[in-house]
Amino acid sequence: MKKIEVVQDVMSVNDTVAATNRQLLDSHKVMAVNVMASPGAGKTSLIIATILRLRDKYDIAVMEGDVASSVDAEKMEGVAKAVIQVNTQYHSIACSLIANVVSQTLPKLPLDDIDLLFIENLGNLICPSRFILGAHKRVVITSLPEGDDKPIKYPLIFLNADVVLINKMDFMPYVDFNMKLFRESLFNLNPKLKIFEISCKTGSGLEDWCAWLEKEIKNTIEVQ
Amino acid sequence: MKKIEVVQDVMSVNDTVAATNRQLLDSHKVMAVNVMASPGAGKTSLIIATILRLRDKYDIAVMEGDVASSVDAEKMEGVAKAVIQVNTQYHSIACSLIANVVSQTLPKLPLDDIDLLFIENLGNLICPSRFILGAHKRVVITSLPEGDDKPIKYPLIFLNADVVLINKMDFMPYVDFNMKLFRESLFNLNPKLKIFEISCKTGSGLEDWCAWLEKEIKNTIEVQ
Repeated sequence: MKKIEVVQDVMSVNDTVAATNRQLLDSHKVMAVNVMASPGAGKTSLIIATILRLRDKYDIAVMEGDVASSVDAEKMEGVAKAVIQVNTQYHSIACSLIANVVSQTLPKLPLDDIDLLFIENLGNLICPSRFILGAHKRVVITSLPEGDDKPIKYPLIFLNADVVLINKMDFMPYVDFNMKLFRESLFNLNPKLKIFEISCKTGSGLEDWCAWLEKEIKNTIEVQ
Repeated sequence: MKKIEVVQDVMSVNDTVAATNRQLLDSHKVMAVNVMASPGAGKTSLIIATILRLRDKYDIAVMEGDVASSVDAEKMEGVAKAVIQVNTQYHSIACSLIANVVSQTLPKLPLDDIDLLFIENLGNLICPSRFILGAHKRVVITSLPEGDDKPIKYPLIFLNADVVLINKMDFMPYVDFNMKLFRESLFNLNPKLKIFEISCKTGSGLEDWCAWLEKEIKNTIEVQ
């Protein structure tokens, strides 16, 4: 009996397509940032606040990932240089953007006219940690009301991130959040993580985050 | 050439095992509640607060689902009659409990000695909506800081729920949450949804939720 050989598994196919995405982005001198978080942690708010601070210097587009609806994309109208909505509800993998979906979507964006692309992943701390997309940087947003135990309970997403943004710092008086414990948990997972404490509502901390991002845009575009 | 026939897909296998789980629960006169929510919405807090209110009348156990760690199970020590932790990080499906995992775990609980089982699913609004477990009721917790657009962005989990608990009502003064819009979105998805506005921190609304739950326990156990 002839054996059926499985040539590539889902993850290695994803990684191959992600590498192709990166090449496409590099060839157009576009830096891409994969933004991941729980539902309601502030992905859309962070992206909007960042674009408003940087759009005089850079042309910025957004790829919006959601299971359903286009409410986030609608918020980006008039803010981002270009925005495209991806709904995953009928895809085989509905709980995360995957490299193949990004690959199909990138050509629909004006890549020659942008410097920075935010890829807003689905609200989920589990699935997006498993699929690289080809973005240059991986950013995780966590928010104070979610609690300080997230790195212990969802380690992989923090382990593989470049930056963690701790959002909703304005909630500090109303929550029981041990920042020392939280930062220690992050450090134990990934000592190289860049961490910013921010509030998209008040604007606190966004200056430092934007300065870091600007430096990375310059490095990425110059290196190419 | 002989065609290879795929006899059952993942979802129908899951549904078959879920039906077996339900039979096992019914044969032991145990009502099970599948508790689903975003990370940090208050699943563990809700379960603890509920057990503390009902444990004089009912014996209550908890099955704790997490990608990694046992921090939630540890919080249940001395509260629940029995607790068991399930970590999904090395399972084929890491982002939700599935019927097969529940099936392997149920025999490790003292089913003859309990009336109610809380199955605390993983912090995720997407994957758990796709896998029934065999529980009698499906409860979704959402919390004010997550925002009022969750039913529009994650419809399936609300569509298939029996109850929605709106937690962290004590945050109302600090958030921009349109309760009318939120309730309308829920009603459009599922007019039969039972909705409770609660705060696990202050205890508000928990009396009504517990009264509903008690009625359901009685119905479930009596009917058998």
